[in-house]
Amino acid sequence: MQQHDPSASPFPSARRVHVGDLRVPFREVSLAGGEPPVRLYDTAGPQGIPAADGLPKLRQEWVARRVARGDTNFSQMHYARKGEVTEEMRFVALREGVSPELVRDEVARGRAIIPSNRNHLELEPMIIGSRFLVKINANIGNSAISSGIEEEVEKMRWATRWGADTVMDLSTGADIHATREAIIRSSPVPIGTVPIYQALEKVKGRAEKLDLRVFLDTLVEQAEQGVDYFTIHSGVRLAYIPLTAKRLTGIVSRGGSILAKWCLAHHKENFLYTGFEEICEVMKRYGVSFSLGDGLRPGSIKDANDEAQFAELDTLGELTEVAWRHDVQVMIEGPGHVPMHLIKENVDRQMRVCREAPFYTLGPLTTDVAPGYDHITSAIGAAMIGMYGTAMLCYVTPKEHLGLPDRDDVKDGVIAYKIAAHAADLAKGHPGAQAWDDALSKARFEFRWQDQFNLSMDPDTAREFHDQTLPAEGAKVAHFCSMCGPHFCSMKLTQDVRSMESSGVEAAKAEVEQGLEQKAAEFREGGGELYVAVDAAAST
Amino acid sequence: MQQHDPSASPFPSARRVHVGDLRVPFREVSLAGGEPPVRLYDTAGPQGIPAADGLPKLRQEWVARRVARGDTNFSQMHYARKGEVTEEMRFVALREGVSPELVRDEVARGRAIIPSNRNHLELEPMIIGSRFLVKINANIGNSAISSGIEEEVEKMRWATRWGADTVMDLSTGADIHATREAIIRSSPVPIGTVPIYQALEKVKGRAEKLDLRVFLDTLVEQAEQGVDYFTIHSGVRLAYIPLTAKRLTGIVSRGGSILAKWCLAHHKENFLYTGFEEICEVMKRYGVSFSLGDGLRPGSIKDANDEAQFAELDTLGELTEVAWRHDVQVMIEGPGHVPMHLIKENVDRQMRVCREAPFYTLGPLTTDVAPGYDHITSAIGAAMIGMYGTAMLCYVTPKEHLGLPDRDDVKDGVIAYKIAAHAADLAKGHPGAQAWDDALSKARFEFRWQDQFNLSMDPDTAREFHDQTLPAEGAKVAHFCSMCGPHFCSMKLTQDVRSMESSGVEAAKAEVEQGLEQKAAEFREGGGELYVAVDAAAST
Repeated sequence: MQQHDPSASPFPSARRVHVGDLRVPFREVSLAGGEPPVRLYDTAGPQGIPAADGLPKLRQEWVARRVARGDTNFSQMHYARKGEVTEEMRFVALREGVSPELVRDEVARGRAIIPSNRNHLELEPMIIGSRFLVKINANIGNSAISSGIEEEVEKMRWATRWGADTVMDLSTGADIHATREAIIRSSPVPIGTVPIYQALEKVKGRAEKLDLRVFLDTLVEQAEQGVDYFTIHSGVRLAYIPLTAKRLTGIVSRGGSILAKWCLAHHKENFLYTGFEEICEVMKRYGVSFSLGDGLRPGSIKDANDEAQFAELDTLGELTEVAWRHDVQVMIEGPGHVPMHLIKENVDRQMRVCREAPFYTLGPLTTDVAPGYDHITSAIGAAMIGMYGTAMLCYVTPKEHLGLPDRDDVKDGVIAYKIAAHAADLAKGHPGAQAWDDALSKARFEFRWQDQFNLSMDPDTAREFHDQTLPAEGAKVAHFCSMCGPHFCSMKLTQDVRSMESSGVEAAKAEVEQGLEQKAAEFREGGGELYVAVDAAAST
Repeated sequence: MQQHDPSASPFPSARRVHVGDLRVPFREVSLAGGEPPVRLYDTAGPQGIPAADGLPKLRQEWVARRVARGDTNFSQMHYARKGEVTEEMRFVALREGVSPELVRDEVARGRAIIPSNRNHLELEPMIIGSRFLVKINANIGNSAISSGIEEEVEKMRWATRWGADTVMDLSTGADIHATREAIIRSSPVPIGTVPIYQALEKVKGRAEKLDLRVFLDTLVEQAEQGVDYFTIHSGVRLAYIPLTAKRLTGIVSRGGSILAKWCLAHHKENFLYTGFEEICEVMKRYGVSFSLGDGLRPGSIKDANDEAQFAELDTLGELTEVAWRHDVQVMIEGPGHVPMHLIKENVDRQMRVCREAPFYTLGPLTTDVAPGYDHITSAIGAAMIGMYGTAMLCYVTPKEHLGLPDRDDVKDGVIAYKIAAHAADLAKGHPGAQAWDDALSKARFEFRWQDQFNLSMDPDTAREFHDQTLPAEGAKVAHFCSMCGPHFCSMKLTQDVRSMESSGVEAAKAEVEQGLEQKAAEFREGGGELYVAVDAAAST
């Protein structure tokens, strides 16, 4: 085990604390003015460990015991259904602030998954399900026109630093295997891949040369490395392809198009559909979870919720039942591009057809007219679809449709999606979600500027923006902000109002209605300076 | 009238066209490949006119006729109720693609307003109402720690260039009068203000020295200049102030706090409430519209939809009826900070209580934990509240809660809100809203890169992002993008699929199901290269 400080956090005035015998990590932010510290969900993982070393193998002993006793199905669903509460289940229960029994029950019935390949020992377990915190995924991966191994590992670290709950490696270029290996060994979060990409490279990019054997070999190769979930497009059935013909934007999923081409070239049923049971055998041997791909998802507002999308969804529902018969965990991928009024229908239908298997959507974008801002067009849809019960949101960066995301784009995408996920947690009333907002709002109202910055999703940016107008350190303790200046702020007024009330609002209200000459006099003598509006930039 | 090119547009491959006898402006974007040009709603106004000159006085003759015939109430509602279809009504009807009679009817019943002071002759009329395109407002204005007149005029131009439908001048510092004059003379959009700010300066910042006379004098001064709507906090009643005592963040509205202080200091009812009828007399004389301020709006998620907010809303409903008895147009201001699950309740309640008078909300922010990104936390709430029927959305910039917005912040705020407003228009099924999305998606699918850029809400950023990965001019016509590279793109596949179908999808489906050896052979011979996924950055 390498030397490193387990309490190191990349965030200011914060440290990583580890709770319980399983050492579940949280970000603990210290506050001023005698306020108790605030504990936040933390995805950043252990800090300061060289990629060459890899992270500590947290799950080594947990898995070793299962191997020793001769387990053959390493799926958390398998254990859950046998009534076994695994370390992974206890870990996520503590992380989410719920009971281990709730976790076991949700995993057993398939409404939540804990992606955790037996060979990804560095993983800090997390859970994906509608009864838990909404999660977000960040995509990384090199391509013909792109980057090296270190760069991809750094992208993964950067994404998890800002809050990515899982990371998908979508590499299609050179060094796929080595890149993936480096990412997994350094990743505290589940890693997902789309195996068809590598399978395609094994047949020199000729889709029609693909077959189940090449695909299964690829699955085993990646599962051995520790990939936690696979996107597999088994729902792209031959008969559905013509349904995309009338679309404005056809098929926009890479995997979907590869399989569609194969089906057309052989005029045969998709081998990922016919061979699904064999695929399940590999999945359970390593405890890999399915992310059933939506190869026919719409690529534009016009094509949203159409026949092709829903036909594929029906098949994904059918395959979910098959996977569950093998005790293999499943989540279902969803769109894409959906106008706001059709978002709920998407979730309701997925939940019905797929028996509440976790939904994992890309956005959706709520309009097509703002390329360059699709982290925003899609954060709107992501927040809503999260509120309606979607378990994980795949981020979209500002470069979507235009180019490859760089470091800043990855951060912008992750932050926009953390906002969407947290807004959904608030709307769903997840226990504890609002404590974070209340702590920050209290700091804001009490002008504890440093606390406000440190409690922010992005403390660096919050502090930088404040300094642009009021750089002085003094301003950090000032009882005003640049928007209204020193003479307008609501705090003092509210104090005056509070001073009026002895036994609560009603009494105060009565007092006011009777009229209170004396209070008024005191108020005037006090010269009661009035202050206003931290909401000032837009405040009226 | 100064020399300028009326067809000049700040957007690439676009020109301002003027339709009909009233010369209603649109942005016409020309496309490649024989595609018909696309006409978009345009708020940019006439270009290239020095601030010193002021814009052409489009409404001069319209208003002159009303003055000549001795009108005393210049409110559009007054004319609408008399059955008169004004030039302003015909102008907005053509601009929105609806009938003038619908406009007259909506204005007459108070469900829409056309802010248009008789003295703002440079105005290109627009309408605010739930049956029309969702509008957005941008706030500008100097302050103690800020800027000069030219800078404010430039801010207004910058905001309208990107799509602000109205602009509020929230200046509180020096040169309030001159700054406002310069802004109005150069503004093609309605200008709103919060007169209490200037009134407060007239009494040296001592809120308790305020009275109705000082306030009415200020109203007349600003109305004479041509301000189109006034935010007036008549709903902050004495009895409601104690209701804010138990709040986490008290009162966060500047105007609300000023009035609250006045009420407490005098333990009297708000003079803007008791003097409301006198205020109405000024409003109708100039045709100024009310924007009834929500001085008790919540300042945090915790305080959303509380007793104080809804008590004030009830009073705003009562005052709406009073204003309507004077034929004065009214819109109602709303929050602020509201979690997603409470947004609909806000709109439904406002519509019921205020008899469907247009709702004009600030955001709302859907979480408090992301200062520095509140244009995003609030664009989520804005899009949803717009979908539920809110007529205008007041933008929030990334600097909200932290500092004063600069040029980039204003642009970021306007774009985020144009996205929210347009997403709401799509969800509401506004006629023509989707044509824009379809045109851009078609360009995207057909790899007409320049068209995709030019149809974007922000062509500059879209083009810049694309160039960061593929700078070559050649890439602008390439049938692939950097995300997937040349060998993956859905277009060709979809063409193959389409070539299969003679009489529609069903026939093709049947063909497929029967199996089509021949087609498949052709496909293989054709070497049918497969392409994929413009959705690639996130595509699986």
